Amino acid sequence: MPRPLFVSFQGGGAGQWHVDRIGAVRGDGLAPVDRLRVAESTGVPPVGVWTLRGVTSNERYVERRERSALSAVQQPLGRDSARCAALIPISKSDEWWDLTQDERRAIFEDQAHHIAIGLDYLPAIARRLHHSRDLGEPFDFLTWFEFAPEASAQFDDLLGRLRATEEWAYVDREVEVRLSR
Amino acid sequence: MPRPLFVSFQGGGAGQWHVDRIGAVRGDGLAPVDRLRVAESTGVPPVGVWTLRGVTSNERYVERRERSALSAVQQPLGRDSARCAALIPISKSDEWWDLTQDERRAIFEDQAHHIAIGLDYLPAIARRLHHSRDLGEPFDFLTWFEFAPEASAQFDDLLGRLRATEEWAYVDREVEVRLSR
Repeated sequence: MPRPLFVSFQGGGAGQWHVDRIGAVRGDGLAPVDRLRVAESTGVPPVGVWTLRGVTSNERYVERRERSALSAVQQPLGRDSARCAALIPISKSDEWWDLTQDERRAIFEDQAHHIAIGLDYLPAIARRLHHSRDLGEPFDFLTWFEFAPEASAQFDDLLGRLRATEEWAYVDREVEVRLSR
Repeated sequence: MPRPLFVSFQGGGAGQWHVDRIGAVRGDGLAPVDRLRVAESTGVPPVGVWTLRGVTSNERYVERRERSALSAVQQPLGRDSARCAALIPISKSDEWWDLTQDERRAIFEDQAHHIAIGLDYLPAIARRLHHSRDLGEPFDFLTWFEFAPEASAQFDDLLGRLRATEEWAYVDREVEVRLSR
């Protein structure tokens, strides 16, 4: 488990990713931009139209048997074939944050099958979760996905299944940023 | 569950708390200072000799039955009678951070009885945990304790019991800062 990694997602006129579309799934959206820059370090100056920051932290819900299953098939970011990406910033409601660890875990996996759903799309869809709530950011989590163009329909299917879970009833803001390079 | 609260602990020549002593329990200590300032907000300029920052986050291990037990007896910070305080910065080893949530929880409570030990000293000793690891800080956690002078022996007893747990085998740096006002 490496040290936490700070990542800034900067929407504006520059960056390695072209923004294909930005949709407000629930609550307020984000201002339209042409490009997205992903910078993996602290102290990145907030250039561009908006900057969202997060940190890859330790896993909060994954148990040993699940980590083993995930590790066996998941792929790193940055594959040459991964010409498509998505950034999904979400916030969860006060009701979610008022739950205790056992209650959140029960919704997360035993009921929502969040981890099991993600497993169905490996290795095609690579994923990295960033925590933002404790940084005082407007969103609680930023999830970054990378996949080949031919996996785009699979990715839409993954999003649809996650949004249908009980866990998603606690999401009170969600934006979908679709990207290509 | 309130929003995360940023707190800066600034060791130097100013602040509401007098530093009685600073001890390095494991690993490197902290530079000696006369006073400690506790500032509850973001963007506090790093004055003084050292500044440690943390954020009160959501609970990571406490389950519903435990939160109920804690809530029934725990007291807020800032009681008039609480003329003594302690700041205990700790870091845990890579081995700890490489464990999964279920494994950490098992050590935290089922084996170490961390929560149960804390309950034994309520309401005399008030406590607030601050998370620092995801802020890129030198310590992983900063725990702040407040108590009346007559509870000092109880506090020493609490520290001794926590340090004897299996969980503490994963602590690779610990400093004890004892304070009064």
